[in-house]
Amino acid sequence: MFSAYLENVREKSPLIHNITNYVTVNDVANALLACGGSPIMADDPDDAEEITAICNGLNINIGTLNSRTIPAMFRAGARAYELKHALLLDPVGAGASSLRTNTALNLMKEIKFDVIRGNSSEIKTLASGSGKTHGVDVDKADVVSDENLAFMVEFVKNFAKSSGSVIALTGAIDLASDGEKCFVIRNGRPEMGRITGTGCQLSAIMTAYVAANPENKLEAVAASICMMGLAGEIAFSRLQPGEGNSTYRNKIIDAIYNMDGKTLDEGAKYEVF
Amino acid sequence: MFSAYLENVREKSPLIHNITNYVTVNDVANALLACGGSPIMADDPDDAEEITAICNGLNINIGTLNSRTIPAMFRAGARAYELKHALLLDPVGAGASSLRTNTALNLMKEIKFDVIRGNSSEIKTLASGSGKTHGVDVDKADVVSDENLAFMVEFVKNFAKSSGSVIALTGAIDLASDGEKCFVIRNGRPEMGRITGTGCQLSAIMTAYVAANPENKLEAVAASICMMGLAGEIAFSRLQPGEGNSTYRNKIIDAIYNMDGKTLDEGAKYEVF
Amino acid sequence: MFSAYLENVREKSPLIHNITNYVTVNDVANALLACGGSPIMADDPDDAEEITAICNGLNINIGTLNSRTIPAMFRAGARAYELKHALLLDPVGAGASSLRTNTALNLMKEIKFDVIRGNSSEIKTLASGSGKTHGVDVDKADVVSDENLAFMVEFVKNFAKSSGSVIALTGAIDLASDGEKCFVIRNGRPEMGRITGTGCQLSAIMTAYVAANPENKLEAVAASICMMGLAGEIAFSRLQPGEGNSTYRNKIIDAIYNMDGKTLDEGAKYEVF
Repeated sequence: MFSAYLENVREKSPLIHNITNYVTVNDVANALLACGGSPIMADDPDDAEEITAICNGLNINIGTLNSRTIPAMFRAGARAYELKHALLLDPVGAGASSLRTNTALNLMKEIKFDVIRGNSSEIKTLASGSGKTHGVDVDKADVVSDENLAFMVEFVKNFAKSSGSVIALTGAIDLASDGEKCFVIRNGRPEMGRITGTGCQLSAIMTAYVAANPENKLEAVAASICMMGLAGEIAFSRLQPGEGNSTYRNKIIDAIYNMDGKTLDEGAKYEVF
Repeated sequence: MFSAYLENVREKSPLIHNITNYVTVNDVANALLACGGSPIMADDPDDAEEITAICNGLNINIGTLNSRTIPAMFRAGARAYELKHALLLDPVGAGASSLRTNTALNLMKEIKFDVIRGNSSEIKTLASGSGKTHGVDVDKADVVSDENLAFMVEFVKNFAKSSGSVIALTGAIDLASDGEKCFVIRNGRPEMGRITGTGCQLSAIMTAYVAANPENKLEAVAASICMMGLAGEIAFSRLQPGEGNSTYRNKIIDAIYNMDGKTLDEGAKYEVF
Repeated sequence: MFSAYLENVREKSPLIHNITNYVTVNDVANALLACGGSPIMADDPDDAEEITAICNGLNINIGTLNSRTIPAMFRAGARAYELKHALLLDPVGAGASSLRTNTALNLMKEIKFDVIRGNSSEIKTLASGSGKTHGVDVDKADVVSDENLAFMVEFVKNFAKSSGSVIALTGAIDLASDGEKCFVIRNGRPEMGRITGTGCQLSAIMTAYVAANPENKLEAVAASICMMGLAGEIAFSRLQPGEGNSTYRNKIIDAIYNMDGKTLDEGAKYEVF
């Protein structure tokens, strides 16, 4: 089922504007190229609006936000929304500082995002307008598990409904909902958390999937999550003795590069609630 | 013929100041080290001028320009010019936004660059003072091919003459001219376009080649283009099944690291018009 | 002896706030994850203070300092000091420009660092309040060797005493002193200097080691230096023909990821003076 979404990305090669953190930006660019999209970065307020206009999607990631890039996020966001581009928010560290929490909440007020993707703490922070996180990682109490799955599915559905955005809450188990349906996805490997930036890469790829599949946003989001998780599984199986998180990082992007529709359809592990 | 240029870089180990984008900056630094140069980055106006003074060359790349780094480009550029350092402009995204186009054009007005290196759209934008690009990639209509080669050689020669800089227009076929001669270079692999930053790496390496070979700038530029393309060919031949653009990135830098004069002389594919 | 220090990092997984340069920041994050710590980056003055409060350590690296991030360094530093977090300064390029030298010296005046880690030129600059460096690399005249070892040990001890910080002067031979004892460490490979950022990675890891071992700061610093150098040795032994500095970079982080206490204890090469 998801193969068509992947193939649309490879065919249309959407150009994605990323206003993103400088920690993982190189991996974001290479992951976008690997999945079939094309990246461009511009974060000056006087540049971002014009650059976003020539793109197909905008990925806003607040991982290293600052006083200069925040206005660029608002200006590019407004322009991209006007142009009906695919619009995604990755609220890195929302809940860890008031600047991050408030910026994310204000962006949500001013711009209607197609998708908001974050870990459990970040999504909970945005849903409640407050919260506490352990750095940029999810609070252990917040992890989605089989025990709290029904509750979390309901929570994500409700937040999707109230926000009007597809909500993608990713972790050991990934959830994606548009308020009606909720995908519960079990691809991926825990070792992906020992690499910086797999979440940032996913957000960029997800933006490309939504840009290339505008009629089925929720499915496009779910497809990108399965694809990324599956790439993590394939890369893990290709690790040799003595290899660690740095080589794993490279092999994940390689696996995205080599992913095809058949592999994705066979490897995707999800249920719909 | 080009081996002497490579060996000069390895012997003199020129220190190159890079005011460059944060997307590919790590690869730029490692590529410079791989080719035999030494990198330093500084982009605050109050730092860049003093830092550039202790260097042998300055590589200005406008890929993620902003209101703080633009003045640093002008100040460092003026100082480096005064000190007769190797001076290169990489006008990333010129034509994609007015900030980028205007900054590149204004830099050219205020500073005489030894080399301007860009893709076809960027170079055309600067030559005409206007233009449109598809993000940071070349417009398809602009690609140098055997069909339009004679026209493009003439175009590049003319722009080199009028600008007073060596013009390096890189793509599937690379052109480099000082206004008199034009190198037409056919090294490289199309897959290099699926990695972010091979162009940025080349610009930094090119600056090192010019800094280490100040008497023969055009040949130094051509040598660096052949070397980079050849590294892309060698790295491609070393790819294993299952590997993709992330491993390819690493193997290209590895191939630069291991390049020697004999390999370069034997592998360089160029004609002079 | 050092195994306990390593294991404390893996057990406590300290969260380290890095205000660092954008050249090597991705490797810094992956190296921190590899050693068992957890990274977070925040460099806006309005974000850094609050972010540092939820962390266990703060690593300030001035490699690409600017007018916006310098105030963030001071504010986060003051807050982290108040909270008794592990505090490290990496004065990249001190001596190469007055902005860098003055910022490092002013940070030392306002904040009492647990550790200052730099190369010989940087440390000498800070010790004397002036100096000259060849870019971000050490002046050749400054290299610690068997010839000047006794002198350099005394120098580092004295600077540690006068500054009240553990001084880690790293290079071909590494020195670490608290003013009383001085570790002389001979792990590592010269080829590590052909990769950008091994020093930056070490500073971040060192901060994690001090955060996880607050009772024995000097030993924690020495353990992290041995660990990093040993990772460089192991990675070097794993290099295949045709591989270069880019693959070496990945294999070093992989070796940090796979390092265990027994390997560290058996591989650490040091004397105490």
